[in-house]
Amino acid sequence: MTFTLSKSLEILERTPRVLSNLLSGLSEEWINGNEGQNTWSAKQAVAHLIVCEETNWLPRVKIILFDNTNKTLEPISMTSHFDVAVHHTLDSLLHDFETLRKNGIEALKSYHLNDLDFIKSAFHPEIQEVNLKQLISTWAIHDLTHINQISRVLAKQYKNEVGPFKKYLKLLQCI
Amino acid sequence: MTFTLSKSLEILERTPRVLSNLLSGLSEEWINGNEGQNTWSAKQAVAHLIVCEETNWLPRVKIILFDNTNKTLEPISMTSHFDVAVHHTLDSLLHDFETLRKNGIEALKSYHLNDLDFIKSAFHPEIQEVNLKQLISTWAIHDLTHINQISRVLAKQYKNEVGPFKKYLKLLQCI
Repeated sequence: MTFTLSKSLEILERTPRVLSNLLSGLSEEWINGNEGQNTWSAKQAVAHLIVCEETNWLPRVKIILFDNTNKTLEPISMTSHFDVAVHHTLDSLLHDFETLRKNGIEALKSYHLNDLDFIKSAFHPEIQEVNLKQLISTWAIHDLTHINQISRVLAKQYKNEVGPFKKYLKLLQCI
Repeated sequence: MTFTLSKSLEILERTPRVLSNLLSGLSEEWINGNEGQNTWSAKQAVAHLIVCEETNWLPRVKIILFDNTNKTLEPISMTSHFDVAVHHTLDSLLHDFETLRKNGIEALKSYHLNDLDFIKSAFHPEIQEVNLKQLISTWAIHDLTHINQISRVLAKQYKNEVGPFKKYLKLLQCI
């Protein structure tokens, strides 16, 4: 399947509601359980999506499109979401994510991007040159990776409760 | 985390809306793409959830609770959903799943289950004795495994579009 902006937006615009429907109102045990040491809870994963929305996706789009002097992408903080998760309720995180995403999509649409824009690029310190098409595709797929992670983290909270059915639930056996 | 009926229902009652929000209105390429030969598309996974709802979960609950002569659980068909997916639109599958699940939850609540019920058991041809607590836990976790699968299948449709960002997206590398 090849990239289009509209197919990417189809995913991006759905994620906040998917996560709200999955997580809002769940018991604390579901939302705060993780997969063991140095792993994230569902709530922390939502906080990470907020951090990415604030510091990564749209800022990187802007660097690719508008920064003509220093087209270098900043690395993402993989720790600052822990603090964000501690200081907010899950519902406030879900609400913030929805607002940030709405603004991000509006900004993306307001640029009226064309095929020449999608091949504009910037420099990533680790993976070198990346273009706008790849960045927007990754923005969408990154959402799906965290829906994937959250469903796995939730499932594992019941890993001892399924008894012998565990044999059929490969997800409970993976990291 | 230990089993309770209410924590299980928290997951069971959310899944239809999660899947509708994730999948309804997506382009055909998203919903019909799979992970290669002998793998399922997102649409086929929803059809499988319908098959399980019709032939597996509640029927098995009833065998455990009410069948006093032959407490043996039937195996699940792992192929009949292919036909179901061919003959229905995704939106009609999502609607059917929502209705079936609503009925299943209502039935489950109508039994006013207590701790003695949860340890009632039946015979599974492969994994031997399973009890009601394990079956209901598995019903909930099975939902999460398919949300997990669907998010992975969707993500893989863009595996060539993310370019060098693939390095950070472990999900695109797994089966």
